[in-house]
Amino acid sequence: MDAFFQPKSVTIIGASAKEGKIGYEILKNVSKRARVFPVNPARKEIDGIKCYRSVLDIKESIDLAIIAITPEGILKAMEECGKKGIKHVVVISSGFKESGNEEIEKEMVEVARKYGIRIIGPNCIGTFNGKNGFNTFFQRHMQLPDGGNVAILTQSGTFGIGLLEKLAQEDIGVSKFVSYGNKCDVNEVDLIEYLEKDDETEIIAIYAEDFSPQFFERRYKKPIIVLKGGRSEAGKKAARLHTGAMATNYDIFQGVCRQLGIITVDNFAELFSIIKIMSMQPMPKNGKVAIITNGAGPAVVAADLIDEKENLELAELIDLTGSATANDYLNALENVGDAGIISLIFVFHDAPLAATLQKFYEGFRRKNALYVAIAIGGKFVMEQKERLAELSIPMFDEPSILINALDKVVWFKNEGSGNR
Amino acid sequence: MDAFFQPKSVTIIGASAKEGKIGYEILKNVSKRARVFPVNPARKEIDGIKCYRSVLDIKESIDLAIIAITPEGILKAMEECGKKGIKHVVVISSGFKESGNEEIEKEMVEVARKYGIRIIGPNCIGTFNGKNGFNTFFQRHMQLPDGGNVAILTQSGTFGIGLLEKLAQEDIGVSKFVSYGNKCDVNEVDLIEYLEKDDETEIIAIYAEDFSPQFFERRYKKPIIVLKGGRSEAGKKAARLHTGAMATNYDIFQGVCRQLGIITVDNFAELFSIIKIMSMQPMPKNGKVAIITNGAGPAVVAADLIDEKENLELAELIDLTGSATANDYLNALENVGDAGIISLIFVFHDAPLAATLQKFYEGFRRKNALYVAIAIGGKFVMEQKERLAELSIPMFDEPSILINALDKVVWFKNEGSGNR
Repeated sequence: MDAFFQPKSVTIIGASAKEGKIGYEILKNVSKRARVFPVNPARKEIDGIKCYRSVLDIKESIDLAIIAITPEGILKAMEECGKKGIKHVVVISSGFKESGNEEIEKEMVEVARKYGIRIIGPNCIGTFNGKNGFNTFFQRHMQLPDGGNVAILTQSGTFGIGLLEKLAQEDIGVSKFVSYGNKCDVNEVDLIEYLEKDDETEIIAIYAEDFSPQFFERRYKKPIIVLKGGRSEAGKKAARLHTGAMATNYDIFQGVCRQLGIITVDNFAELFSIIKIMSMQPMPKNGKVAIITNGAGPAVVAADLIDEKENLELAELIDLTGSATANDYLNALENVGDAGIISLIFVFHDAPLAATLQKFYEGFRRKNALYVAIAIGGKFVMEQKERLAELSIPMFDEPSILINALDKVVWFKNEGSGNR
Repeated sequence: MDAFFQPKSVTIIGASAKEGKIGYEILKNVSKRARVFPVNPARKEIDGIKCYRSVLDIKESIDLAIIAITPEGILKAMEECGKKGIKHVVVISSGFKESGNEEIEKEMVEVARKYGIRIIGPNCIGTFNGKNGFNTFFQRHMQLPDGGNVAILTQSGTFGIGLLEKLAQEDIGVSKFVSYGNKCDVNEVDLIEYLEKDDETEIIAIYAEDFSPQFFERRYKKPIIVLKGGRSEAGKKAARLHTGAMATNYDIFQGVCRQLGIITVDNFAELFSIIKIMSMQPMPKNGKVAIITNGAGPAVVAADLIDEKENLELAELIDLTGSATANDYLNALENVGDAGIISLIFVFHDAPLAATLQKFYEGFRRKNALYVAIAIGGKFVMEQKERLAELSIPMFDEPSILINALDKVVWFKNEGSGNR
């Protein structure tokens, strides 16, 4: 599977010379991190790179093929990949199972099996490696995250793009990313198995519209967070048109996930928040929360929200009042009890805290706890988000999404951490 | 009550000459929009403005007094305001009921009643008028919103600052803002009565830790959105220390609000989202939602979330696929059925849509529907948020909070709109 993430030589079948075309953008993108061998029978070269009629004309050995041609030519292309000895293929093209063309997808897999080829896709945007930047994307202007400890698996390319950009925007690093679309061959279980052994990956987040039966067979060695699309009737119908996903009952799905210690989330905000917390902070030793604040209003709301959660308990609410300075925060942090989670609420504006923040950033010392911060506001608050990120403290701009996420993190620590 | 928002002459009792002090910052702030008369027996002038020993020494008539002295001097100051004929006083100072000093707060109110004075506060940051920028704040670097149709009432100053900054950041305008703290005299009901008659105000949002009994006596003429702090035991305790709020049962509170057509929300994210939708868009004619998208994944999740909501129904899911251009969106909008809510999902990145956005912005024509947009991503997406705001279309960066908010907006339209 390594060839999907760090190939030395890559052929792009369906390479194009026309800017903006998928086959051009992939070629340009891949050429930055690997030796490329474009295949297009109508061209001799593209932007000075020699072009081939078929992969069979390439002399060098090829680690990975990326296919971006219409389904009609796919069987011949796959056959030739097999003969050439290529073992890893990403099929970007759509027009297969999701469009009712199940037959051609099956035949393509049969050809691949004959040659021992593994396929990612079709109907996907392929792979991205955060560490070396390698990706099979045709998106030119996308913000991509740096290397990190979060792996993303997604059936939806769209969802993947949005999530990668949001992670990049908030400086959360990614180990490996796979958009696997119709998953005609490599499925989420194959990918999890790979990622369990991957040293870079500590957390695995999945967006999927259906799951393979093997997904439910065992507990995993790393934390898994799942957002399932197509839970409702309307969503199921849309999912079937999207990735050809079969319907399952969501309650049963959720129950089985719970037994396996898999975190299920209902929406994108929750998924992102849990990723953010788990990628930046250690597991909490317990679900007790200490709140340290210089503003009572947000602390009252946070206390209410904690009270509603099964796995959280408010241990201390330390209101330093508006006159608190960075030193007061540092002292409070020093003297806090045995709470597993320490939530700092900051009201910055023209409070003495704002003027002494530098001291806080310099004086902050981590103890055995999971730290998070909340600050509501505008530009100034956003700047502090970056400073706090340097201390690995995830900052949220309101308490509710954070507290939902913390509840699930503690649930995982209690129920699911057998697999960590 | 107008004098709280557009006074011509204002005295600041406890004015200070020292930068950073509350009494200095308020003076500076108020002097930008009104004639100021600082009171401080120790000073002859502050920054060139004549200073008075007492309000009784001021010859001009005074519309509003802002008091920022400690509780010890408060009775004398209030007595003098009465003698001077001042009818409106904002008491910024804390150290009253919330600190156990209920007696002095009561005596202060007795003095005020004797002279027909109305008090906002104590333990608050006072008022802000979005239209003329007048405010009684001591925050110097706060981002303030422009004028608009949303009124904010809050017991927590902190909460108010955070909310105002976030509204400013997202270009949502405010009509009137009142931080009323311990509400020793003017309470939320007085303020709502005033705002019901205020031409600028169309929506009223409230954060409060306790409500006056009269709050529950009638339906209001304008939509009211309420976030109640202190719902849980821990929150109640914190609220008591914060604004001296008495405990009430939240379920009962919520039930009564429902009967009165008042929208209750559980957290800041929901409050903000409902404000955003209602301030930018008309009431929907029904709860049917049409989704128009160029990316299936986010649409599947949105469909799932809509299905879970009592007041929403998915009417159409139009997947234009990744190849959609602005024209396809405009055509789909032209041909959409009778849905009351039209949700545009945009996947911008290197999609043909991104290149043709200008056409969309120019060609967009409003029909009889509530429009919203969803786009997940990074910098590019944030830029589109501003462009969409110019068309009054609120943009959200993921579906879940939006759909929660829409459900409550439709509930209001069905159950609560007797009061609009």
